[in-house]
Amino acid sequence: MDFKKLHQIEPGKSVKLKSIETKQGGPFKNKAEAVEFTADRNEKIRDLQYRMFVEQKQSLLIVLQAPDAAGKDGLIRKVLGQMNPQGCRTYPFKVPSEIERAHDFLWRIHQCTPATGMVSIFNRSHYEDVLVVRVEDLVPKKIWNERYEIINQFEANLVAAGTTILKFFLHISPEEQLERFKKRLDNPDKHWKLNTGDYAARDKWDQYREAYEDAIAKCNSKQSPWFVIPADNKWYRDASVAGIVHETLTQMDPKMPPVDVDLDEIRALYEREAAEQRS
Amino acid sequence: MDFKKLHQIEPGKSVKLKSIETKQGGPFKNKAEAVEFTADRNEKIRDLQYRMFVEQKQSLLIVLQAPDAAGKDGLIRKVLGQMNPQGCRTYPFKVPSEIERAHDFLWRIHQCTPATGMVSIFNRSHYEDVLVVRVEDLVPKKIWNERYEIINQFEANLVAAGTTILKFFLHISPEEQLERFKKRLDNPDKHWKLNTGDYAARDKWDQYREAYEDAIAKCNSKQSPWFVIPADNKWYRDASVAGIVHETLTQMDPKMPPVDVDLDEIRALYEREAAEQRS
Repeated sequence: MDFKKLHQIEPGKSVKLKSIETKQGGPFKNKAEAVEFTADRNEKIRDLQYRMFVEQKQSLLIVLQAPDAAGKDGLIRKVLGQMNPQGCRTYPFKVPSEIERAHDFLWRIHQCTPATGMVSIFNRSHYEDVLVVRVEDLVPKKIWNERYEIINQFEANLVAAGTTILKFFLHISPEEQLERFKKRLDNPDKHWKLNTGDYAARDKWDQYREAYEDAIAKCNSKQSPWFVIPADNKWYRDASVAGIVHETLTQMDPKMPPVDVDLDEIRALYEREAAEQRS
Repeated sequence: MDFKKLHQIEPGKSVKLKSIETKQGGPFKNKAEAVEFTADRNEKIRDLQYRMFVEQKQSLLIVLQAPDAAGKDGLIRKVLGQMNPQGCRTYPFKVPSEIERAHDFLWRIHQCTPATGMVSIFNRSHYEDVLVVRVEDLVPKKIWNERYEIINQFEANLVAAGTTILKFFLHISPEEQLERFKKRLDNPDKHWKLNTGDYAARDKWDQYREAYEDAIAKCNSKQSPWFVIPADNKWYRDASVAGIVHETLTQMDPKMPPVDVDLDEIRALYEREAAEQRS
């Protein structure tokens, strides 16, 4: 199954999110099959990530964008966060702090891009500066409208430095979002996630959709692609993202570096000491 | 089982590492029992970590120090790194960079201490500045000798700000280290870990042991305790650290914050919209 091909938006083309079904199951007959696939891919991802960490030649940046309750946290917990934490960091981008606002919008982002061998996971990102900022009218159109090109140049710079970029939009229906909000009410452990602003954003669903469509269409290239992930089924969301990350790491093909020490010499040293211990 | 009491070094007392057995099994009859215990504690740790993350009132700093091949990476992979990556970051401290060397030794460390709600895991730490720096004579004794007190004040400042500190020394025998070095030779996936310097450090085993004994004795308090973990058995290393982290988080007792929104109002809003959708 080629999940990349299945969910990648073709560069240069516009995208109509309404025409993409939010509830899909892909090739899986049922949830159990998808869960098994995800577990298998998680293991393979860890192995490839280890090789990339040791190889020290390339890096991976994963950008997550989504409406509230679409499942970014769950995806991190069940798939992306399963990577070895020594080579992987998660960065949440919330409302900018005073210091962050005193800089250009990419300043705080750039500090979190992955070093060689590393994976960065962005929970929200610089795309908020053409999404919430646009819909809530936080800066004039002239400003946010220039940002698409600025983002493209920024991402091209990262790619040129050896970073592979994957951008995921978790696509849920407003009905599914409402269901999930309701479930949060019934689970005291999720009450902290409730805030009255979430619900207000539902009134602007169409405006957000348009802002996403523009961001995806205008900042989409073969080197820095967007994927629209049908996310009403959590198990399909996890499986398809695991599939795409696995396909990507496989293409990156990280290799263990050649040995730069004399193995025989070291072996002789060890054997000598072990012999001394025994005698 | 009280793993904290079992392995904590009493503050104010000196420590003789030679008198602490490196190969222990604690209360476990066999490896399988320990592995089961670790899995159970990992799950409980994740739950408590989630509460701390949501509570946003306290933080946890875990410091790992050990001779090469004592198992820091394995411990992170199998226990500490099992925490939710959104609330947990691992920081490796290697040979300082040029910029880092241009600052005091705590400058790079301070940037990585945990924010409220977060866990930081230090893979090596500021203690290297009284360990390798002392044994390899990288700065005069006058300089490294002052650092114990500087470290104590630094850690006290973190504790005052709501950070709980746990410091683990993974204690292996030189024989076990040699065995592990030899195993690396036979596993091509571990060859990148080989370097001729590792072996050289074995000649200074006693000097390193003394440096560890001083660091542990001089920078040890009820608030910022050292634990000496018998690490020849990997399964006991994992189980005892998981036990100590679990006991600590239980004592920290993080609580879900009270709801600051009107649940009934939100519920009514949701029900109204759901009713509209149905009609």
